[in-house]
Amino acid sequence: MQSLIVKTPSHSYPIYIKAGILGDFSYFQPHITSKVAIVTNTLVADLYLQKLEHLLSANGVDCFSIILPDGEQYKTHDSLNQIYDALLRHYADRKTTILALGGGVIGDMAGFAAATYQRGIPFVQIPTTLLSQVDSSVGGKTAINHPLGKNMIGAFYQPQAVLVDLNVLNTLPNRELSAGMAEVIKYALLGDEQFLQWLERNIVAIMQRDETLLSELILRCCQMKADIVAQDETEQGVRALLNLGHTFGHAIEAEMGYGVWLHGEAVAAGMVLAAKLSEQLGYLSAADTVRIQQLLQQAGLPDAPPVFALEKWIQHMQHDKKVQNGKIRFVTLQKLGKACIDVIQDVAILRNTLHEYLPH
Amino acid sequence: MQSLIVKTPSHSYPIYIKAGILGDFSYFQPHITSKVAIVTNTLVADLYLQKLEHLLSANGVDCFSIILPDGEQYKTHDSLNQIYDALLRHYADRKTTILALGGGVIGDMAGFAAATYQRGIPFVQIPTTLLSQVDSSVGGKTAINHPLGKNMIGAFYQPQAVLVDLNVLNTLPNRELSAGMAEVIKYALLGDEQFLQWLERNIVAIMQRDETLLSELILRCCQMKADIVAQDETEQGVRALLNLGHTFGHAIEAEMGYGVWLHGEAVAAGMVLAAKLSEQLGYLSAADTVRIQQLLQQAGLPDAPPVFALEKWIQHMQHDKKVQNGKIRFVTLQKLGKACIDVIQDVAILRNTLHEYLPH
Repeated sequence: MQSLIVKTPSHSYPIYIKAGILGDFSYFQPHITSKVAIVTNTLVADLYLQKLEHLLSANGVDCFSIILPDGEQYKTHDSLNQIYDALLRHYADRKTTILALGGGVIGDMAGFAAATYQRGIPFVQIPTTLLSQVDSSVGGKTAINHPLGKNMIGAFYQPQAVLVDLNVLNTLPNRELSAGMAEVIKYALLGDEQFLQWLERNIVAIMQRDETLLSELILRCCQMKADIVAQDETEQGVRALLNLGHTFGHAIEAEMGYGVWLHGEAVAAGMVLAAKLSEQLGYLSAADTVRIQQLLQQAGLPDAPPVFALEKWIQHMQHDKKVQNGKIRFVTLQKLGKACIDVIQDVAILRNTLHEYLPH
Repeated sequence: MQSLIVKTPSHSYPIYIKAGILGDFSYFQPHITSKVAIVTNTLVADLYLQKLEHLLSANGVDCFSIILPDGEQYKTHDSLNQIYDALLRHYADRKTTILALGGGVIGDMAGFAAATYQRGIPFVQIPTTLLSQVDSSVGGKTAINHPLGKNMIGAFYQPQAVLVDLNVLNTLPNRELSAGMAEVIKYALLGDEQFLQWLERNIVAIMQRDETLLSELILRCCQMKADIVAQDETEQGVRALLNLGHTFGHAIEAEMGYGVWLHGEAVAAGMVLAAKLSEQLGYLSAADTVRIQQLLQQAGLPDAPPVFALEKWIQHMQHDKKVQNGKIRFVTLQKLGKACIDVIQDVAILRNTLHEYLPH
């Protein structure tokens, strides 16, 4: 078992990483109350819900489940309202704990429901995708999408604990494993060049799901995220670097329709664009960008965005949460392993960055 | 000018109480950003919106307004969504400040929008009713109603400042002034017997809107609330005492339909029931309850609830946020000026408390 503590001004909590946690009540017991609402989706429910319900019931926990449809396109107010309705119908009170059993979409929605139901009730993250294990379950960002922008409505709200069961990766589709690797590669690019080299050396075995390598990789990413969140819980400064590839990525998701590209796939293409923007700014060489593209390809990820008009890119990016006083801010790479923030006001720079991918 | 500071673990902020604040930019300037969204309702907009917009524009602030329908029945997700939509249409970002110009409904909704738009943006309360000046604008409770329960969806989120302009009380309808006095009387009953005597001595002049008395009364209530919130920001303990009369009151509002009884009116009747429950528990005498009823009458408030069935009372109260592990908790009065919390499990006690007001 590996573990670490996430320390934030509002609240500190543990992350446990181990195969078999879903069958071991001792990991749940210190972090839940006597009444529990499990929020999950149809896909994950088929695989793991019965096991978890049985574990809780066998240990005297009063639990009920809320099963939502699967996919980013359901990360909406309607789904959130289904959670509220079920909580109210079951007379959930401030001593009820929400368990988020699923990937990033479930974690974000269940976390936001926990943040706002009766002005806040406890919740525990049980991430079931690589992406949520290395990224979205840690750090307390919760949200739903709005038709005009991704994650526009949300809260910073920390869980009581994050329980990462390595066994769930055995049932993860390849496309989802790749999507998770996009965020893993993001950590390496923004802050750790040695980790980037480690990934390049081990990418083939990782994609074959070597458990030891996956455990090591999850711990490393969670530790990087925990360090950044401890410095900046509410994204006033350094935390924004975690959005490497996300300004372009969110535009791709919004343009294509949520769920058509997986979040990780959009971030992968977004990181290629962040690298090309960094070339425009004189930070990176073309060879650096190619190196990123090669690693993404080996991880089964796109290394280019879909083609759409510059005006669309700008329109979507103006709704980004990193916009301040109307200026679009990008996470760029000063070199591989070191990210920074740049305000780009010159549309020509964006046109040059995107020119291969604009319609002719 | 009178002022005080509300100190909470998450954030400290000032309350200013003065006639004419809406015409004095110096009270706004330290607490707002260069872009501002004013959230208000149709009624308040007619009276004060132009004045405020002019003040801000004349001082170089980029502002736009969101005007919602007036009334508790509009404290819904639909209204909240109107705020989100307007913020997105105007490209509001994390450096945009929301000004809540209105009573408790506007303050609660605008505050919740601020708490959740892009995971939190700054906001300033400008309460325009006595009720919101003495109670709801202070302490960071924000919320919307859900069809199954009042204030069920919300967040604890503190404003940057609370600006109380005494002049706005001149346009407040008598019924709203009375509703505000319900919360004022609540403070006296739950924590300050001397203040109760002061109110009994001055109630006639207060209802004639004596400005000095109103200023004194607002300061005293805000100070009591600030002290309680400083001890217990997220209502784990002592803060629950502020809900005196509210468990019964929320049931009245839910049963009658939001907006039929004003919140303050429902709280007034709820306090009479809390007193009668306190009699049942052997704390208060019948004379104490009569004394409360007389003061409520002098303040133009109901001293009895509407008639409906016991099952309805219990059904509504089981959705109260003070329910813990399924048990309904009531704020009761050990004596006039001292409140406590009691868990009532014996339905006979509730039946005796309500028996005058149950259908025959």
